[in-house]
Amino acid sequence: MTEKLEDLTARHAPTIEAAIEAVSSRKSWSPFRDSPSAKFHAPGAPEAGRAAFEAQLGQPFDLDQPGITSRSGAETSPFTRQPLGIDYPVSDPTALIGAAQKAMQSWRKVNPETRMALGIEIAMRLYARNFEMAHSVMHVAGQSYTQAFSGSGPNALDRGIEALAYAAKAMRDVLPSVRWNRTFGKEDVSLDKSYTLVPRGIGFVICCASFPTWNAYPAMFASLATGNPVIVKPHPIAILPMAIVVQECRKVLADYGCDPNLVTLAVDTLDAPVAQRFIDDPAVQIIDFTGSPRYGGYLEKTVTGKLLFTETAGINSVVIESCADLEATATAIARATCLFSAQMCTSPQNVYVPAGGIQTANGPASFDEVAAAIVVAIDNIASNPSIAAGIMGAVQAEPSCDIIHRLADRAAKALDAQILRYADAYPHPDYPQARTMTPLVVALPAGNAALYAEEHFGPVLFVIAADNGDSAVEEATRLARQNGAISSYLYSTDEAFIHRALDAYMESGMNLSINMHGAMWANFAAAYSDYHVTGLNPAGNACLADLAFVAGRFRIVQNRRPAPLKAGSDAA
Amino acid sequence: MTEKLEDLTARHAPTIEAAIEAVSSRKSWSPFRDSPSAKFHAPGAPEAGRAAFEAQLGQPFDLDQPGITSRSGAETSPFTRQPLGIDYPVSDPTALIGAAQKAMQSWRKVNPETRMALGIEIAMRLYARNFEMAHSVMHVAGQSYTQAFSGSGPNALDRGIEALAYAAKAMRDVLPSVRWNRTFGKEDVSLDKSYTLVPRGIGFVICCASFPTWNAYPAMFASLATGNPVIVKPHPIAILPMAIVVQECRKVLADYGCDPNLVTLAVDTLDAPVAQRFIDDPAVQIIDFTGSPRYGGYLEKTVTGKLLFTETAGINSVVIESCADLEATATAIARATCLFSAQMCTSPQNVYVPAGGIQTANGPASFDEVAAAIVVAIDNIASNPSIAAGIMGAVQAEPSCDIIHRLADRAAKALDAQILRYADAYPHPDYPQARTMTPLVVALPAGNAALYAEEHFGPVLFVIAADNGDSAVEEATRLARQNGAISSYLYSTDEAFIHRALDAYMESGMNLSINMHGAMWANFAAAYSDYHVTGLNPAGNACLADLAFVAGRFRIVQNRRPAPLKAGSDAA
Repeated sequence: MTEKLEDLTARHAPTIEAAIEAVSSRKSWSPFRDSPSAKFHAPGAPEAGRAAFEAQLGQPFDLDQPGITSRSGAETSPFTRQPLGIDYPVSDPTALIGAAQKAMQSWRKVNPETRMALGIEIAMRLYARNFEMAHSVMHVAGQSYTQAFSGSGPNALDRGIEALAYAAKAMRDVLPSVRWNRTFGKEDVSLDKSYTLVPRGIGFVICCASFPTWNAYPAMFASLATGNPVIVKPHPIAILPMAIVVQECRKVLADYGCDPNLVTLAVDTLDAPVAQRFIDDPAVQIIDFTGSPRYGGYLEKTVTGKLLFTETAGINSVVIESCADLEATATAIARATCLFSAQMCTSPQNVYVPAGGIQTANGPASFDEVAAAIVVAIDNIASNPSIAAGIMGAVQAEPSCDIIHRLADRAAKALDAQILRYADAYPHPDYPQARTMTPLVVALPAGNAALYAEEHFGPVLFVIAADNGDSAVEEATRLARQNGAISSYLYSTDEAFIHRALDAYMESGMNLSINMHGAMWANFAAAYSDYHVTGLNPAGNACLADLAFVAGRFRIVQNRRPAPLKAGSDAA
Repeated sequence: MTEKLEDLTARHAPTIEAAIEAVSSRKSWSPFRDSPSAKFHAPGAPEAGRAAFEAQLGQPFDLDQPGITSRSGAETSPFTRQPLGIDYPVSDPTALIGAAQKAMQSWRKVNPETRMALGIEIAMRLYARNFEMAHSVMHVAGQSYTQAFSGSGPNALDRGIEALAYAAKAMRDVLPSVRWNRTFGKEDVSLDKSYTLVPRGIGFVICCASFPTWNAYPAMFASLATGNPVIVKPHPIAILPMAIVVQECRKVLADYGCDPNLVTLAVDTLDAPVAQRFIDDPAVQIIDFTGSPRYGGYLEKTVTGKLLFTETAGINSVVIESCADLEATATAIARATCLFSAQMCTSPQNVYVPAGGIQTANGPASFDEVAAAIVVAIDNIASNPSIAAGIMGAVQAEPSCDIIHRLADRAAKALDAQILRYADAYPHPDYPQARTMTPLVVALPAGNAALYAEEHFGPVLFVIAADNGDSAVEEATRLARQNGAISSYLYSTDEAFIHRALDAYMESGMNLSINMHGAMWANFAAAYSDYHVTGLNPAGNACLADLAFVAGRFRIVQNRRPAPLKAGSDAA
């Protein structure tokens, strides 16, 4: 690599400016194409990516980093149910922390604009490897090929660049230096003041198994841009995507003469988790966590004196008070719940429908008719294996299937619940062994929330008979305040009702999509435009992305001294 | 009050713009005069302020707020040693929290620009009462009249307006709404998105006894501007200044038709502290603390899931490696340590001087000569009662005197320490009963930090014989990393040495003043220009002021819906 750092900085400056413009205007923008269609990519790129993934299978992953003591890896593909056979280096945490601290010494002195440009370079290199990444995400997380390509590729990289844009805004808000003049009594005092951005400390990034890159990129890019080294801890059953990320980060950093130990991988196993060792270390100052509400909540209750950003999960709700087109509405809900078999933090779970039915443009529809429309819409997806495969992909882990089976048993025994649709497997056209599961649909009355008041991580939809739209909103927002919610959905043709509802959603910290259907997934969140997680309910405290996500990752240290004696001179 | 909220907003908009310009340019600015000199103020204002204070003595403080269960107050003037005889309403915490939650419901819907304008109005009203405030601060905190007027008045209000300017920047960074367009497949999707700022929750502001307003204003103004109610807990021995602040806030809010319960006072006693009741309440989401490292450290170790901002204290150091003018340098150090009898978070405590002496423009000076020059400079202040009174004021509480007496005993017994100056009282010209104390000065070798490795809250200066400038910087910055430091001072004529030292100061998170002497106090921190506290060492985590101080005080909740079907139309 012969490009100089200043050339790299200049080359990526327009991308950073465009990203800042995007987060400021909230308009649609991306430097990437988020479709795997061959026409958008270099000839042979899809095949080369697949080949790279396949060549990795059964091989040790090539990652040289400090303090390697052993190798580990036990990933199994949700599609083939076969072990990937890849092992990864396991490093001594003390060695990783020591190396990160050393790397920070030089990194903090690198111009913030250059650090940001290196972030963009990392994003571009990862985009260039995105076909390989898509297969890697597929076979650890279970996402469909299309979703793995877009959602874990460009859509995730965009969220990273978005966080980088906020870091740019926050850092540029600090003037590097000023000449300050003031009169004290009869004396004119003139001081030269310098303000230096100082990184806070090591960032520790804990990734989830089902969507590893999407939250990791914002955390990594924001921490690196603000001068902090990053230690990435992948979920032990979904290591490969983050190993690729770490490998690529280290390569870019080394290419440009920076310390590769700014980014390292902390591999552990389900039996011997290592996260707490890092969390407790005084050198680790920033923790970004994505994962279960249980462990996220534990961190929220125990981590002190450090920056902690969490995204866990919640009970996302749909309220159908009325709608223009029942079929379109039912299809939107079915698509949102079928996408990745509801293993997303934006997947809806609880659908409220007035027990007395709703109004539609084609006349009234009873509760049963609305529920039936949703079931039909799900069946339309589930009954076509090729469509089902593209939307649902596979179920990442067996416990998700167990959860849904147990739920079905409980629903079958509950006097007031009625199973409208069973969670059966669909036959995957390419992977006959795939662990697939279509949504369980249960109808039941509101007010008895034992079955649906918590998040069930797997494909299930409760269709809940509420007294009316207002009481539906009341219960949905109350459960969100108690147990969290990230994405919520409301269908109504009554503007007065919508207006009333908005305040309750706002107070419960629920981002709301109103009357969404059509080509865009209702639960699609666009980087640069859609804020993700409000921090106002238990679903997490980290908003992707806002100034609060970045402003504390660096601090400001100043010095000041009398200006040289040149009367009337201005600041340098 | 007949002014409409929109007129108020328009009237104060230029002040907010000027404050934003000031924090962005870091230039000297203030809407206030920080001298009590009669020529800057309305005729009779000084006398009226004094009269208002004196009329309050011995009287119940007029503050009507929810849930009053009793009255309390046991303040004693450090100048007269007489009780102020004022009692304050004690409210049931549950009532204060409930009233604040209710007030937040309407306050969060008030336009942020209007909330900020109300903040400016509060600042202006407090400035109008500043002569009364000066006497009030004097007689609870012990600050001299001049310092109470400026440091607890305009200088403190400026820090509040500075925080408000950052709140403005952070809130204005969020676009209220956008029309978003993107093509999905063959479908053009057009969405109207709204982004609403939602307050995080009740702000609880814990004030210190010696400088109550300076940190309270930034916390209060930032929380109120971002939509949060504020409950102020003054130190039980220094209630009056914050009672005046709360009274004035409530008056302004009521004048403009807002709920006065947005600002209430939580009075407690030394025997029955009430802070933890508020800190533990789920409705309290923001805690701003100023006070002892002990309680601040406890909060830092125990508060989870909430925003916690702390400013405690540290061991501020001076390193004299060399200097141009020994007398000027010694005078600057003496003034900084004498100011308010070293009861400030910026007061220096440890002065490092090379054991082999230093170079000055007038030739070498031995360690003893440097130490003697400092003692002489202190004596010059201490021996003139009128100068001493203006600079030192009084000692807020008897325990500070005890600390210094015990230190003197320890120093007298230490084999390697030498007392260069005893901490005697000076006779106050106006208040013969005043609790005064001039600095104790102790010389001792570096490396044995038992006496000086912690902050002693009272007038003491250690003159520490270091091997050389570099080892002095090494120890000073190491102790700061361990125990905190807020303001540090370095004297040197050797640019290479300064350059070497800067990095260590930076890494220890120590704001540094280099070669400062003259009319401006070396430990003066200018709002809008000097960042105060870095958050990188144990002296606190709250920087006054930066984006990190404000960005988490509000959150963003969005909603989105299909745009009305008007092809090609732009955002409203």
